[in-house]
Amino acid sequence: MPLKGNALIGQSGGPTMVINASVVGAVQTARQFPEIETFYGASHGITGILNEEIFDLYRVPADVLERIKLTPSAALGTCRMKPKQPDLERCMEVFKAHNIRYFFYNGGNDSQLTCHMISELAKNSDWEMQVIGIPKTIDNDLVHTDNCPGFGSAARFAAAACQFLSKDAEAFGNIEVIEIMGRNAGWLTGATQVGRLDDYMAPHLVYLPEVKVNPDEFLEDCKAAFKEYGYLVVAVSEGFAFADSTVATTSQKVDEFGHARLGGVAQALGDMIEEELGVRARNDKLGNMQRCFSYCLSQPDLEEAYAVGADAVRRAVRGETDVMITIERKSSEPFAFETGTTSLMSVADQTRLVPLEWLNERKNGVTQQFVEYVKPLTTGAPEAFQPGLPVFPRLTKEFVTPKLPKYVRPK
Amino acid sequence: MPLKGNALIGQSGGPTMVINASVVGAVQTARQFPEIETFYGASHGITGILNEEIFDLYRVPADVLERIKLTPSAALGTCRMKPKQPDLERCMEVFKAHNIRYFFYNGGNDSQLTCHMISELAKNSDWEMQVIGIPKTIDNDLVHTDNCPGFGSAARFAAAACQFLSKDAEAFGNIEVIEIMGRNAGWLTGATQVGRLDDYMAPHLVYLPEVKVNPDEFLEDCKAAFKEYGYLVVAVSEGFAFADSTVATTSQKVDEFGHARLGGVAQALGDMIEEELGVRARNDKLGNMQRCFSYCLSQPDLEEAYAVGADAVRRAVRGETDVMITIERKSSEPFAFETGTTSLMSVADQTRLVPLEWLNERKNGVTQQFVEYVKPLTTGAPEAFQPGLPVFPRLTKEFVTPKLPKYVRPK
Repeated sequence: MPLKGNALIGQSGGPTMVINASVVGAVQTARQFPEIETFYGASHGITGILNEEIFDLYRVPADVLERIKLTPSAALGTCRMKPKQPDLERCMEVFKAHNIRYFFYNGGNDSQLTCHMISELAKNSDWEMQVIGIPKTIDNDLVHTDNCPGFGSAARFAAAACQFLSKDAEAFGNIEVIEIMGRNAGWLTGATQVGRLDDYMAPHLVYLPEVKVNPDEFLEDCKAAFKEYGYLVVAVSEGFAFADSTVATTSQKVDEFGHARLGGVAQALGDMIEEELGVRARNDKLGNMQRCFSYCLSQPDLEEAYAVGADAVRRAVRGETDVMITIERKSSEPFAFETGTTSLMSVADQTRLVPLEWLNERKNGVTQQFVEYVKPLTTGAPEAFQPGLPVFPRLTKEFVTPKLPKYVRPK
Repeated sequence: MPLKGNALIGQSGGPTMVINASVVGAVQTARQFPEIETFYGASHGITGILNEEIFDLYRVPADVLERIKLTPSAALGTCRMKPKQPDLERCMEVFKAHNIRYFFYNGGNDSQLTCHMISELAKNSDWEMQVIGIPKTIDNDLVHTDNCPGFGSAARFAAAACQFLSKDAEAFGNIEVIEIMGRNAGWLTGATQVGRLDDYMAPHLVYLPEVKVNPDEFLEDCKAAFKEYGYLVVAVSEGFAFADSTVATTSQKVDEFGHARLGGVAQALGDMIEEELGVRARNDKLGNMQRCFSYCLSQPDLEEAYAVGADAVRRAVRGETDVMITIERKSSEPFAFETGTTSLMSVADQTRLVPLEWLNERKNGVTQQFVEYVKPLTTGAPEAFQPGLPVFPRLTKEFVTPKLPKYVRPK
């Protein structure tokens, strides 16, 4: 007998081009289940739950919802927050106060841990509820899923950008170093070589954070490639590091989790190659565009994101809890998938790196196996083209009347 | 009576998404004129002429030529070179050796000066030839033309990127500073506000290099906008400078013309705003993607670029010389244009800045007049969408047999 009550969904961590498709998939599917009376969205993830800043997604007009599906970046608002025990307890109070029986959290491995902790707390409380994690990350580093919604579109952007930038470098006959997101996992950096269909194309060299690079070999390979092709394109992960050194970064600042803010490695490497080869080197950092440049929306990515949101609701109503929805690939050509589940505990705080056997011997390129895995995910969505400039719908958040005293986070 | 002989075309300076459309327009049009016996392309502009590295564009298969039209960046190869007197004299020798009666040079104001100098030299020699400049620049800073081929597509990219990045900043409720190309002219930076259709959209503030900014007013405006919208997006030209200071840049290096290499202003401003507002600020530099990211191809831009190439040939055969082809706008809605001409001398080394009356009173935004001028140029070309990743044709350059002794540039 399914639980009767309200649902709540939150978005967490770095946005993607398709994260909103998961929310829309969940909300549109919930409409089919009378057990879900109201479907709330949390403003800025956990932060919004703590502050009772939640609003009714059933009140969003159907056409606005359809347009939000194609809008990049977390429409509900996102956050980067690791909740502590009192925060989690406050969440439970909010759930009870607003009769939340279904909780969905859409994020990466940090967020799945949060989701698991909430699930545990619920299990050990008198409040019966279903808790389901919805996967999302451009980094593609969640375990137990074929790939992560958000990755395909980011991969399409990064791969296309590298092809375009390659033509620019070739026109001058100079050197181009391109910096790609990825602190620990190099899926996105490797994806840039998927567009290299033939030897005459670029990028010529790619460096993933899974491998610490020998500086002499690096310069040797740059020289050899430049000599062979008359220009040189190198794609590097922002987590690039030489052997026996720490991560290259130009910033002294740290992010919300205490990690050093990355960035600047392409410039540093460009300067180094320029000095060694005596050829002008430029650098480009794809930056935040990797996760929001929706002209590069990937069709399979969009479908996956919608499906994991929709399936989360179907499974929750069926009584499943403490799981994250996964993608199971059924075919690469044409691309086909089904959804499955894995326990939240099995993904929480885990990172799936690129297997070293998917890199070439010299560790400066990816294998055909890597290409065959990533390529189907980079097919463009026709809806990505509009003659006009992007126009996004406006989502008005009318928060519910708070039922609890104001919350002050303990230090 | 039109001159009978060969034609030569070169590409110069920073590439654009449509510069190849001009070459293709010229070559396809020349086919209609038996006077033009062979149509050579110069490899890397003037450099290729000096070294007799020229090749027959009539031998490029028709389907490859059609695909090159849609390929970003100078397919012939480009260069940044200011020729000196001996270089120009060498060019004349090469023209004579290869019976070049028609010379076309495709570039910005530096290149139009080169073109004019060649034209002058030809006039004062015994070698009769027609010399025509074909406009090109993403900066839109050539005078006497409504706009410059190359600008529309770059504007579409920059405007779209700012819309996408705005959603990312809004999702976090933080600050985003976006760095746009433009050392002296702010057309491209201003174009980013064309996508701001409504007050709730971004970028909230734009700063063009035409205006030196008061740092106190700058921070005041940032604070006010952040307070009003809950997030803040600032678009700045790479040539941004505060009053009484030089251009902000993180690089000590200079380019081929001795200009300081720009870049880094967004990071510097982001840090400054973050400190003042106590809110996380990120920055993105659109970089070289602005001139090559062909998923953002603009339809009017593509048509203009083709037209100026085609018209250059028609006019040259008609006997016109020492002119640059211009764009004359006939209508904005729907966009329509005709081509015209202006003397090379009138554009050489001139820079068209954004008129100050096209900026708002506070000089942190553009007026409706600016928007109405730029917007029609940003309409997307349906050919920009392909489900696959970009694939470009391979242009094989088979150089002619040299007829002159090897050239050594005087120091």
